[in-house]
Formats: sequence, C-alpha cells, structure tokens
Amino acid sequence: MAVEVTPGTTSDSQRNGSAAEQTWVFMAEDAPAANRDLLGGKGAGLAAMTQAGLPVPPAFTITTAACNAYQSAGQQFPSGLWDQTLAALKKLEAKSGKKLGDASDPLLVSVRSGARESMPGMMDTVLNLGLNDETVQGLARQTSNERFAWDAYRRFVGMFGRIVLGVAGEKIDHAFDSAKSRAGTKQDTDLNAQQLRAVTQELKELVQNETGQPFPTDVLKQLELAIKAVFNSWMGKRAVDYRNQFKIPHDLGTAVSVVTMVFGNMGDDSGTGVAFTRNPSTGKREIYGEFLPNAQGEDVVAGIRTPITIGKMRELWPDVYQQFEQIADRLEKTYKDVQDLEFTVERGKLYMLQTRNAKRTGKAAVVTAVEMVSEGVITRDEALKRVQPMHVQQILVPQFDPEALRKSGAPIGQGLAASPGAAVGKVVFDPDRSQQLAAEGEPVVLARRETSPEDFHGMAPAVGILTSRGGSSSHAAVVARQMGKPCIAGAEEINIDVERQQLTANGTTLREGDWISLDGTTGQVFAGRIPTIAPDLERETELLTLLKWADDTRKIGVWANADTPDEVARARSLGATGVGLVRTEHMFREEGRPPFVQEMILAAPDAKRGDSAARARYLKSLDTLREFQTGDFYGILKAMDGLPVVIRLIDPPLHEFLPKHEKLLEEVTRADAKDETGPEVDEKRRLLEAVSRLHEQNPMLGLRGCRLGILFPEIVEMQVKAIAMAAAKLKKEGLNPIPEIMIPLVGTRNEMALERERLEGVVKDVFASQGTDVAYKFGACMEVPRACIVAGQIAETAEFFSYGTNDLTQTSYGYSRDDAEGKFLGEYLKEKVLPHNPFESIDREGVGELVRMGIERGRKQRPSLEVGICGEQGGDPASVAFCHDVGMNYVSCAPGRIPVARLAAAQAALGHTPTDR
Amino acid sequence: MAVEVTPGTTSDSQRNGSAAEQTWVFMAEDAPAANRDLLGGKGAGLAAMTQAGLPVPPAFTITTAACNAYQSAGQQFPSGLWDQTLAALKKLEAKSGKKLGDASDPLLVSVRSGARESMPGMMDTVLNLGLNDETVQGLARQTSNERFAWDAYRRFVGMFGRIVLGVAGEKIDHAFDSAKSRAGTKQDTDLNAQQLRAVTQELKELVQNETGQPFPTDVLKQLELAIKAVFNSWMGKRAVDYRNQFKIPHDLGTAVSVVTMVFGNMGDDSGTGVAFTRNPSTGKREIYGEFLPNAQGEDVVAGIRTPITIGKMRELWPDVYQQFEQIADRLEKTYKDVQDLEFTVERGKLYMLQTRNAKRTGKAAVVTAVEMVSEGVITRDEALKRVQPMHVQQILVPQFDPEALRKSGAPIGQGLAASPGAAVGKVVFDPDRSQQLAAEGEPVVLARRETSPEDFHGMAPAVGILTSRGGSSSHAAVVARQMGKPCIAGAEEINIDVERQQLTANGTTLREGDWISLDGTTGQVFAGRIPTIAPDLERETELLTLLKWADDTRKIGVWANADTPDEVARARSLGATGVGLVRTEHMFREEGRPPFVQEMILAAPDAKRGDSAARARYLKSLDTLREFQTGDFYGILKAMDGLPVVIRLIDPPLHEFLPKHEKLLEEVTRADAKDETGPEVDEKRRLLEAVSRLHEQNPMLGLRGCRLGILFPEIVEMQVKAIAMAAAKLKKEGLNPIPEIMIPLVGTRNEMALERERLEGVVKDVFASQGTDVAYKFGACMEVPRACIVAGQIAETAEFFSYGTNDLTQTSYGYSRDDAEGKFLGEYLKEKVLPHNPFESIDREGVGELVRMGIERGRKQRPSLEVGICGEQGGDPASVAFCHDVGMNYVSCAPGRIPVARLAAAQAALGHTPTDR
Repeated sequence: MAVEVTPGTTSDSQRNGSAAEQTWVFMAEDAPAANRDLLGGKGAGLAAMTQAGLPVPPAFTITTAACNAYQSAGQQFPSGLWDQTLAALKKLEAKSGKKLGDASDPLLVSVRSGARESMPGMMDTVLNLGLNDETVQGLARQTSNERFAWDAYRRFVGMFGRIVLGVAGEKIDHAFDSAKSRAGTKQDTDLNAQQLRAVTQELKELVQNETGQPFPTDVLKQLELAIKAVFNSWMGKRAVDYRNQFKIPHDLGTAVSVVTMVFGNMGDDSGTGVAFTRNPSTGKREIYGEFLPNAQGEDVVAGIRTPITIGKMRELWPDVYQQFEQIADRLEKTYKDVQDLEFTVERGKLYMLQTRNAKRTGKAAVVTAVEMVSEGVITRDEALKRVQPMHVQQILVPQFDPEALRKSGAPIGQGLAASPGAAVGKVVFDPDRSQQLAAEGEPVVLARRETSPEDFHGMAPAVGILTSRGGSSSHAAVVARQMGKPCIAGAEEINIDVERQQLTANGTTLREGDWISLDGTTGQVFAGRIPTIAPDLERETELLTLLKWADDTRKIGVWANADTPDEVARARSLGATGVGLVRTEHMFREEGRPPFVQEMILAAPDAKRGDSAARARYLKSLDTLREFQTGDFYGILKAMDGLPVVIRLIDPPLHEFLPKHEKLLEEVTRADAKDETGPEVDEKRRLLEAVSRLHEQNPMLGLRGCRLGILFPEIVEMQVKAIAMAAAKLKKEGLNPIPEIMIPLVGTRNEMALERERLEGVVKDVFASQGTDVAYKFGACMEVPRACIVAGQIAETAEFFSYGTNDLTQTSYGYSRDDAEGKFLGEYLKEKVLPHNPFESIDREGVGELVRMGIERGRKQRPSLEVGICGEQGGDPASVAFCHDVGMNYVSCAPGRIPVARLAAAQAALGHTPTDR
Repeated sequence: MAVEVTPGTTSDSQRNGSAAEQTWVFMAEDAPAANRDLLGGKGAGLAAMTQAGLPVPPAFTITTAACNAYQSAGQQFPSGLWDQTLAALKKLEAKSGKKLGDASDPLLVSVRSGARESMPGMMDTVLNLGLNDETVQGLARQTSNERFAWDAYRRFVGMFGRIVLGVAGEKIDHAFDSAKSRAGTKQDTDLNAQQLRAVTQELKELVQNETGQPFPTDVLKQLELAIKAVFNSWMGKRAVDYRNQFKIPHDLGTAVSVVTMVFGNMGDDSGTGVAFTRNPSTGKREIYGEFLPNAQGEDVVAGIRTPITIGKMRELWPDVYQQFEQIADRLEKTYKDVQDLEFTVERGKLYMLQTRNAKRTGKAAVVTAVEMVSEGVITRDEALKRVQPMHVQQILVPQFDPEALRKSGAPIGQGLAASPGAAVGKVVFDPDRSQQLAAEGEPVVLARRETSPEDFHGMAPAVGILTSRGGSSSHAAVVARQMGKPCIAGAEEINIDVERQQLTANGTTLREGDWISLDGTTGQVFAGRIPTIAPDLERETELLTLLKWADDTRKIGVWANADTPDEVARARSLGATGVGLVRTEHMFREEGRPPFVQEMILAAPDAKRGDSAARARYLKSLDTLREFQTGDFYGILKAMDGLPVVIRLIDPPLHEFLPKHEKLLEEVTRADAKDETGPEVDEKRRLLEAVSRLHEQNPMLGLRGCRLGILFPEIVEMQVKAIAMAAAKLKKEGLNPIPEIMIPLVGTRNEMALERERLEGVVKDVFASQGTDVAYKFGACMEVPRACIVAGQIAETAEFFSYGTNDLTQTSYGYSRDDAEGKFLGEYLKEKVLPHNPFESIDREGVGELVRMGIERGRKQRPSLEVGICGEQGGDPASVAFCHDVGMNYVSCAPGRIPVARLAAAQAALGHTPTDR
C-alpha cells in the first residue's frame, strides 16, 4: 500500500526547507521537553532530565519535523539541518572537552532513533560513533586500555556495518566467530587487543566487499550516514506495515538523538543497568531492576552474563545508589507515573540515559494507580484512565505460578487465547465422560475438535476447554467466556482424535485422564500439571477501590448476561447492577428436562394442526416445563432482588433441542442396511422424521425468536406464566423482583405488538389470580437490521431495547459466525480486509450506525425507552465506549467481564479512548 | 384491532351535528354527481344519469358524511338527517304520484348501500320496501296481479328479515322451502297467491320469534331501520377487516341510495339485464351483456333461468334496444371508460339503475385503452394509467382455452400461483427422466416435493413445474418465473411420491407419462390435457402500441436478468435495454461442465495450502472453465450488442456444485454397514470428506460472494479473463460490447477496493494482449445491510450499485427465504403480521429505507453512480414504483416480466400508484 507523508506539525515554509530560521536541532538543555511529538520519547526524556539538572551525558536531538522534511524532499536533508547538526556537535564538544575525530582525545557518540512511541521496525542504536584507525589510538591512550579501545572499535564497525550500511548480520557474526575460533576461544572477553584489532580489520574488509565502498573513516560522514539511516528506517517496510496495522499516522516521523558516549565497561567502578521506580509485576513501591558491572548495554541484552539485582548495587555503591534513588523519585513525580530507567555508571559517576513510562502487569497497574492517588501524585480520574481494562481482566483469572511455569517444559501447542486464565485438569474427549469424571470430583479439561450445544453438559463441569478448530467466537469460546472458564480454541497443530480418545501434538500424546494445563491468557497448551495461583477479588483491595471510583464516574450501567442463580450471584458480587440477559433456553438443557422439551417440540406441530392426542402431550410437557422454569426464575429474580432482570423468551430454532440430524440419519441408514428392526430403531426413525421436518437450510435465519412464539404461542405463554408466578411468589415473600420480558428477534411493528398483547394478558392473569402485582416491562431484542430501521414502530409497544449485537453483526454483514470463523474470517483479518473481528468489538461504522439509528428512532417515539446491549461485545472496552457514546443506559456482559466493563465505562465517561480491545 | 372513525370531508360543525343547514340528503337531480366520496359509486351514478336526462327511477341519496356523523354520534342519526330524508321522500312521492304506505297505490323503494368503491362485507340491497299487509293489497289492485304483489311482499319480508333484522338466512330459506314442499312443488313460480300469502305470514312469525318484535308494518320505520342497517354494516367486522387489509381509511363512510322500485317482472313486456359498453373479454367495441325477460334482478343472480343475449333483446324490442345503445354510448363518453350497466324494462319502458366502470380482462383493458386514445376519448397518459401491469402479464402467457377449461373436470388440487400461464405435459418425477423425455420431444411437467439447484437440468426442458412444498419464492418458483415457465408451488394436498413415481390427489393417481395440466395463473392442477391458446406479442398490436407509449413516458430503464444468449435475445425482443444480471454460476451447471467445476472446488483448498499437484489440477480445471465461459459471455454480449450487460461473478457457496452431503452420507454409511469396498466407495468417501469440509451451518451467510473471490482469487480471475476475452473478440469483430463486472455480496470498503484492484489488472492485461480496448465498469451487488450503511465507502471504487433485494431482504429481516416460506411466512401473511410477502414486493419502510440510504450515500461519494435493482422484486409493479421514487437508473427483472415493468415504470413516472402487486 502506498504511503503519503504530509508533515504534521511543520508549516509550509518548513516543508519547502526554504526558511533559514527553521530549528531542526535542539540541545537537550534547550529543547521543548514536553513536546514528545517533536523530540520523540527518547529525546524528550533526555531533555527533561538534562533540564532538571540530572546527570545526563551531553546530547542533542534532531526533530521529527526534520525527518518529515527529509522524506518530502526525496531523502534529502532539508536546508539548514546539517549546519545545525554541526553547530550542536560543537556545543557537545565544548561540554565534554573532547572533539569528534580528534586523534588524541576523541569524542564518541551514540546515535539513537526515537519516535513518539517506541515502534518495532525502527533503527537500533549505533554506539561508539567517531572511531576510526586514528581515534582508536587516542581512546586507547586516554583510557590507558588498548583492549577496551579496540573492543569499542570492533563493536562500532560491526554495528555500523549492519545497521547503517546494511551488511547482513550473519556475515558480521560469522567473521567475528571465525576470529574467535582462530584464537581458540568462544568468549569475546578472551580476545586480546591484538586479536580485536585483527577482527576490526577483517570487519572493515567485509564491509568494503559487501558495499563496494571502504568503511567510512571520516567521522562526520559516519554521523551523516547514521542520521540518514535512522530517517530511512522510518519508511522501511516493517515500520510502515506496523503503522498501517495500528493505524498510526505516517507523518509523525522519528527524531534522532546524538548522545555523548559514556562507558559502563571501563572497569569495576563502572556498569550499566535498567530499573523501574516501582515493581512492574506487583506494583510495590520499591526500586526494582538489575545491574551489570563493567559492561555496556549491549552485553545486558545479549544475556552473556547474569546481572545482579539493584539491591546488590546498593551494597556495592551506596552513594551512587542513593543518588539514583533520589533521581528515580524525582522522575516519577515529574512524569506522575512509574518510570522505566536506563543508566550507566562510568568510573563511579552516574549517568541517566533514558526515562519512560514503564510497562507493567495488570496487578501493578492497579496498585500503582491507586497508591499514586493516595500519595497525591495523580487524581482519581487519572488513575481510572491509566489502568487498561484488560489489566483488570488479568487480575481476576487464575494464573500459572510464574515460577512453576518457568520450570515447566515447552508448550505442546498454541491456539487462540479464547477465554483467559489457567486451567489444569485431566483431559477427556467426550462430554459424557467429562460429566462422569467431574461428578467423581476430578478436575477435567474437555478437548474436542469443536463443540456444539449438545456438548454443554460436558463443558459446564469442566475446568477448561480446548478445541482444535474454531475461532475466538466459536461455540466453545463463547460458552467458556460466559462461564468464566479458561479456553483455548483453534489449536490447529494439536490433533484431537475423539474416536481414539487421545490428542497428539509435537510428538506428545495425551490419553484420557492424562494431566493437561491450559493458559487461556496466552493460548499455550502444556502437558502435565502446572500449579496455579487463584484470584480473589475481595483481597484485591486496590482493585476494589479503583472499581468503586469507576462506579462513581461512569454514566452507563453494567449488567450481566447470566442464566442461573449461581451466575447471577457471581455477577452481583462482581458489581453487576442488573441482569441484561437471561437465556431461558439454557434451562431447557439442564438435567432431567430434555425429554420434556423433546416431547413438547415433537407434539407442537401436530397439536397446532388440531390433533387432540398430540395437544394433550404438548400441554402436559408444557406444564412440567413451567414448573421447572418457575423455579429457575424464582432463583434468578431472588439473586437479583431489587434490580432489573431482562429475561429473553425462547430464541433458538427448536431442532437445537433434538438429536442431530446427521447422527440420526447415519444410525437409521446403518440399521436399514443391516435390516435391523425393533422399537429402538422405530423410535430413531420417528425422531429422524421429526428432525427432518424441522430441518432448515439456514437455521440462523429460520423459525426462531419471536417467530416461534407467534407460531407456537403456548410455549412463550408457558415461559411468561413461569416468570409471573416466580415474581408473584417473591413479592409475597417481601422481596422486590423486577422482571423485564424480552421478545427475541423482533423485526416488525406487528411482531412486538402482537406478542406484547398476548403475553401481557398472561402476566395480568397470574397477578390477578395470585392477588399481587409486580412492576414489569416488555421489550425487544434488537437483532436484525430491519428492527433498527423501524425502531420507532417497535418502540410503540416496547418499553426497552436490548441490542443483540451478535446476531445484528451476523445479519448486517451477512456472516454466519460459525461459518465465518471457520472459513474466511481468519483470512479477512490477516489480509486486513477487516480491521478487527466485529464479533469481538463492535463495528462502529456499520453495525454501530444501525444501533445509533435505532436508539434515535426508538427514543423519538418513546423518550423513556431503556436501551442496553446484550451481545458479547458488551464486555469489550471499545464497545463499552461506543455504548456510552450512543447513550445506552447499560451494557450487559458475561459475569467475568463485569469489572472490565465497569472500568471501561468510567473511561468512556472521562472521554478516554481504550488502548486495548 | 380498534377502529377510530374521524370524518374525512366533514367539517367540525357537521361532526357535532349541530348545524341545521348541513345537507345530508340529495335528490338525484340535485346531487353533486362528480363527488363519489360523498355520494358513493351508486349514488353518483344515479345522479349523473338523472342529470343527463336519462330514464332513471326517481331517487335520493343519503351521504357518506351522514354515515360518519352517525358513527361519531354513537349510532345516532345526526340532527336534520331524518327530516331531510322525509322531505326527499316527499319529492320522490311527488314525482311518482304514489305515496309510501298508501294502501291504495303504494310507493315502493329499494334501499342500496354504496361506498366510493364497492366493498365486500357491506349490506346488500333491500327491494320492495314499503310493503305491509295493507299496501300489498293496493299493489295487487294497481298491478291487477295478486300473485305478483304477494310474491313481492314475500320477498321483502325475507330480505328485510335477513338483512336488516339479522335473522339467519337458512331459517328464512327453510321456512320458504317447507311451504313449497307442503304445496308439493320445488319451484317458487309454482306457488300461487294464496300460498305466497301463507308463506309471508309464516316469515313474519319467524321474524317475530327470532327478534322478539313483530315485523315492522310502519313503512317509515322500515325505511329508518334499513338506512341504519346500511350504516351499521360499514362498521361490521367483515367490512372493517377488509379495509384494514387493503389499507382503506375507515372514515370514507357509505352512502345510502333510496330508489323508486321499477319491476322487470311485470309480464312479457318487462325484464331486467346487465350489459357492458364494450366486450370485457376481448375489448371489442360492441354492446355485450345479457337480459332476462319478465324477471327481477334477484332472479338473474339466482341463476334459475338462463338469460338471453343482449342481441336477442335487439330483435325483441328494437326501440328499447336503440334507446339503450344511445344511453350506453353517452355514458361511456361521460365516464371516458367502459361501463357496466344495470337496467330494467317495466312494461316496455327502459329504466337505468346503475352505471360503473367495468372490470375487464387484460386483453380488453389494453385494447379498450388504446382504442379510446385513437377515438379521442382519453389521452395516452390516461391509457397508461388505466391498464394494470398484471393485465399485460395476463396477455403474455399461454392460457387454457376457456371453452375447453369449462368442459374439463374439477381440478385435482390447488397450489400457489407461482408463475403464470398454462402448461400441459406428461408428468415426470425425476429430473433425469424429465431431460430424457424432453429430449425425445415430449412435453413434460416436472413434479417434485420441492426442487433444488441439482434439479435444474430437469427443470430447464420441462414445460411446467409442480411442487407440493415451498412458497411462491421457493427455488422452483423463482427458477420458473425466471424461465417464464408456468409453475404451481406448495400444492400441499397433492401427495408427490418420488420413489413410487406417482402423485395422488383427491382420489386421482397420476403415474409417470400421464397427462397433467397446470394453470400457473390460478394455481389449479388438472388431470388430463386441456388445450391452450398461445400468446404472440407481435400480434398484440394494441399492447405494442401501449408499451411504446410507456417507453416514451418512463424515466427508468428496464433491463433483464438473463443467463444465456437465448434468454438475452428473448429479453431484448420483449423490450429490455440492458442486462442487469447474468448469474455466471448458472453456466457451471450446464452439460459437460460439472466435472471440471467439481475438480476446481476439490483442488482449490489444497492448492491454496501449497500442494503443487492440487495446484496443477486446480489451474487445469480453471483453464477449461475459462474456455467455456468465454463462449458464454461472447454469446450474451453479442445478443445485447450495444447495450450494457451486468455480469455477476460467482456467488453461491461452492458446495452447491457438489453432490449433496446427506445423500453421500447415506451412501457411505450404507456401504460401510455392508462392508462394501472398491474404487466407487472410496471415491464417495473422498467426496463426502470434501463436502463435509465445505459444509456450513448457514450457507446463506457463509463462504460465498466476494468472500470466495478473496479466498480463491484464481476463480474470479478466470471469470473476468473470460469476460474480457469475449469482449475483445466482439470488439474486433466490429461490435460494441458493454460489460459491467459486478462483485457480489460486498459489505465493506476493502472488499470492493481489493477485488477491483486485482481484477481490473486482469482486464487491462487481456486488452493489452489483444491489442484492443473496451469500455467496462466495476460495481457492487448490494445485498447486505452493512453495504447500504457504508455505501459511500463502497462507491469510492464501485461505479455502479445493483441492489440484490432477494438477499438484502433476507439479511434485513433475518429470514432465510427457503426456510421462511416453508416454516412461518405463510402464517405471518395469514395473520397479517406482514402486510405482504417482502420477497415478492419490496418492503418500503425497512429494506427500502436501506436501499434509499445506500443510494443517497453512494451518490454523495460518486454523483455518476449507476444504480439498479436485480432482485426478483424488479418485476413487481409496486417495487418498480419504489425504484423510480428513489431515483434508480433501471430495474432488472426476468425476461417475461419486462413488458409489465415497462408499463409499471411509465405509471410510476405519471405518479400513478399501482393497484396490484
């Protein structure tokens, strides 16, 4: 894709490069330290630290504007840039008392790239610039250390050759390795000055062979090439791809900082380190980091030697440590955030090289944010904006004990991180076995190629779910998230063989009963049993505090999608102030009920045609189911006492409650082929016929939702009667049930009006017969595009709208989620045909536009209309922000996502854009 | 549903009934004859004829405003109404020289209802009002015919009892039948005066027993009750339901006409008749009707005696006939339309009782409209508005010879009239047999429970199609309409047994090869062979004239959906000026091609994964298919030379081209159960696996449309190459091909942009290699709601939009058409949940709103955007009007519907609302 660069903050005269007064280069001490856009993160940090009087090596920064001007001019320095660079260099030389290229006492610099945010694909740092065959001698003399000087020169030639001149890294490494093997050693440190000198020469020759040019000995030429290399890397393929992916504008540009070299490898009174102002894992207020004596930064990265803790440094050099501690405290106060610091100690003198906001775990993010409020460093609003919603999620799922994880073997496979948390159990491949083993008290992990509603009884008791097919919104993933269970979906390299009851992956085979560990947060699958650490919201006092602030701040309610009293209770404990979706059909699948559901479904069509025997069976099964459902609703309404509970009437196609068509067809065909007879085969034949009758080409778009209720009114009347009976009972017990009855899949004015008219009669009859009265509402589940268009008509009789954005996304795009995830959505996301998965985060411009339109039209008809979302996106921070923006009353999500949604809702109220999806 | 009546044309003072000057009653000679709203159709006709000096019995009319005032006042006459009625009655008495209730020479009147349009559920006419035990004697004396007088009285008591007093008709009939059987006769006419007198007495007693009140002898009371009965019938359930259904306002009201009785049963110089001013079947300019001497209107309706033709009347009474002929001519000129007249001759004197616009056949409608233009009676615009689009359709399909149809037996079954016209052939139950028999030159009718794309090869050669399942937009119906073949769908009472190769219905069994006749216009199925009359557009000169005028008038193009050169040629001969939809996948099903299509599909996924053998097979099959398709496109573009042809790239899910999953599963399961082995079983197993891999839960929402093209670019590249090659060849031959390439199922900006970018390259390459250049367009098929919302983004790279309203209706409502028609759409239409089938006629307020929005947003981005419709609704008159209203450039429909669409488009341009869907 083509990239057009339009300088962002540069004026026309800058772009033309004609204005002599344009400032392209700032000394760290004079730079506008707050302007990260102009100086990049690194340049801004250097400037701020310098201006605060901290010990920073002299430095200057070439601005991002210069980078943009360079790009616009066809990879040419804009007028004035080089002159200003030379002038800045002069100042650097004046400060350090050394000169770049001075054969007796040479100045060495590092050249560092730095965009506003650090970005993969950008140029690395070039250290030790300024060395050549003459200055290396001066360095040796000045440091009285010839080996050090040649080692520095060797490093510089390699780094410059690779990064600036584009020589393949392997070739450079190969040259160095040859030298070592010739010297009969494997360690860099074993090479002496003489040997390093020879290596340097070889590297220079390699560069000349590869580039056709001698290695530049002119130190100014070195500087110019290094600066241009940084600029060019901004438009390199990797950087452009990255920015395209994350929608980062191409006209930000990168700055270049030129920093006087300091050396941590000048002896035992030198060293280099990185540290955080607070513990980035736990959030604890302590300096946390590591330090490598007598080393350059490179060596820390290479991992050749093991660093010591920062605490050890305190013992070694108490004065330096104390100075560092004070600086850290000061930087944290300045930036009002935990800082990630880089520093070097050269012959006992501390130099700060970089300061930036630290990356941290969820736990640390919450703890530091809340503590910084109590310390008076930041406000509550700032704390709320600083914690990412996904940080909250991280805290609330069990995690592998990091220590144990480190010791465990490599993962045997990798899938999609479909539902977070760690799960450890015995692997089973059959839902019945899952149920059995779990009933025996075993922790089980259910592994299937994919799951379907028929597997539910085996999924519910499992501690975790693994599938080799399907995406992050496959049935397995959705159900797992709903239940707050870890799940890894679509782990394609794991071959799950259900028939043989085993899985194989990368040479490992696990059979039923073998231990398996899933990390639903990362998607990694491990053989064996890795210990976990359990979460406990009650003990997460900082999180509780933060969520309390969120509740005080947010404008939008956070309700839960929950189908059982237990789930409702869990949701309430996590802060839900309502239930936005009870899926009544889930109750049909509970133990002991399927036979009655089956009877109801098989008898209904004949009953409708006037068959009186069928009608008797139909009504009898409905009576039984009503008893069951009354108990269910009683429990749910009781658990949500005093808060609203939106109950959706039966939604899925009826055949979902019957045995699978294909399975029956196979069984009957096989029985026929073998001439088997008997009552069992007859029953299967009867079932097959019934299932065939209900079979649909596209069940998603078939006889379901309110269409069922209109064709078979007795079923929804049964449900509504159960709701009303449960509510009446609770009211008489002195509680305050608030049922809201939701009609699914409404698409027309008449559907809503007809259903409400019929069902409101049922409610009133029950209350009259029970001698009590309970407030209730009727509303529509908005799941088809037409409902959004004619929302005003629907609002004539609907008192609330709940956006079923799963189905609305399916119908708006014309995607069946099941099929899309398996067939083309992966490719669409990979090829960026879609910017993100619209089933995970709402599609603002398409589906969202329909939602907005529906709310507007609905509220025009009925200003008091209550509006919420009950699709899965309700727990996604970006979607929560959308719901806030369009003026919904609440979002409803899986119980486990409630804390996330509470924070996201607060951020939306503060106008803060979520940074994670 | 509640009905609120708000008087339409009445002022406030009228509504309050307080203004004494309000005129509720008009004498026929003074009434505002042009005001049908106020006088009703009947009252306006009487007034017009009276004022034109025609012989009309004296009459007055109570207005519709009076009816509304009566309803508003809670079924009370408004102030002044009764007084005005009495005053009008006085004038009637003065004109006739008789008095109502005068025992010596009584005036008798008829009381007739009359709304603006005739409407089922409204009150019938009451004749002979004014008779009681005294006046009957006077009538007997005056007519010197005692039997006549008692017969009139007997009729009046029965009619008044039934219509005004609500006595059940059967009871009245029973009383009369008892009298006849007592008299030992079965004919009314056999009863003498004495016997009729006794019957009258019995009827009066019956009325008293049933109503608890004596039969009213007060003639003014009779009149008052009759008027109120008419008013009350306006709000009767049947009338209210009818108006709700047809969206007729409830505040039109009905008028009441009170007309002096004249008697056609006063002897051989009397009679009664009905006649049309032109032949209502053929449109021929001739008086056409029938006449019954010595009879009352009642007798004509009852069908007791056979009437004579109007020609006979001319012979009998040349003077009366001549007078009638002049009157007919005058009335036709007055109303500028063919009139349907009722008249009575009383003792040689002609009385006109009613004139109204005649109902007529399609043929007659077209002929009279065109001839009236040449006669200077009406303008061309009026002619265009007068003919209903469905009239045109009627002319263009073969019809049963009406004479033969009359003589044929009763139909053996009734289904949905899915595609009009008569089809006669030998019934077959298997598509292969259909193909075989048709190849042998037999006319065949294919009967199936339902059809699928796999049956296509048997449908194409059939003369008609019959299914016992599915609705009017089932596969069978859609394909049949497309091919212009008669089809009856969903004939549920016909049991089609494909295995036993027979159908049974109402006791008749037809086996393969038996003759069957289908009337696709009425949905009736006949056993045997009924002769048909073929249409011939070239001979329908009046229709050709009318369509020429339509073309001059309409603003919107009429294009065709056509998939073969033959269809395209037919469409062009019917007036299409473009092809709006070529379904390329239809070509994949033609003879000899499925093996290559299958190979392509089976190899594609493996080829994509990098299997080089699969890739070779894939590319080879594509090469073959490209050859085929180049020929196809060459033929189509040639047939539409100089006019645009919109070619849609492959759209349906790939598994539609493979054997059915269930069938394979059955076969493989059976083979496995029987331990069968061999290459055939292996092949089936391989196919089953491939089909299973492609199997989708909801194929409608799965891997199809542009998703296919993005995943398997080679397939659409092959198609586009074929299009470009065909176009280049034609161009080099001196023709002018205009291909427009349509990307199906576009839902996002990127899909359109990506496909266009890839495919435009292919087009350019072909033209470059062929050394020629052809104008072309790329556009989007708008089939999912999201496309309409983000239409502006899509129009960035789409030069045209074609609304695929079949799919757009499916996704907007969330209906799968196949499933909906079979499962719930019937009930929805029956219960009026939906006002009409949105797959037949566009849903203006839902789907239509999305279409409108898409056009607006698309044109905002690209003002030159070409917009059309290619869904089936394109041939529906109401939908054509919609397309005109939203500013589309063209509609595209099945070839057979093109004449209909041409007329509908002209009517839309004239602002004329279609009266039929």
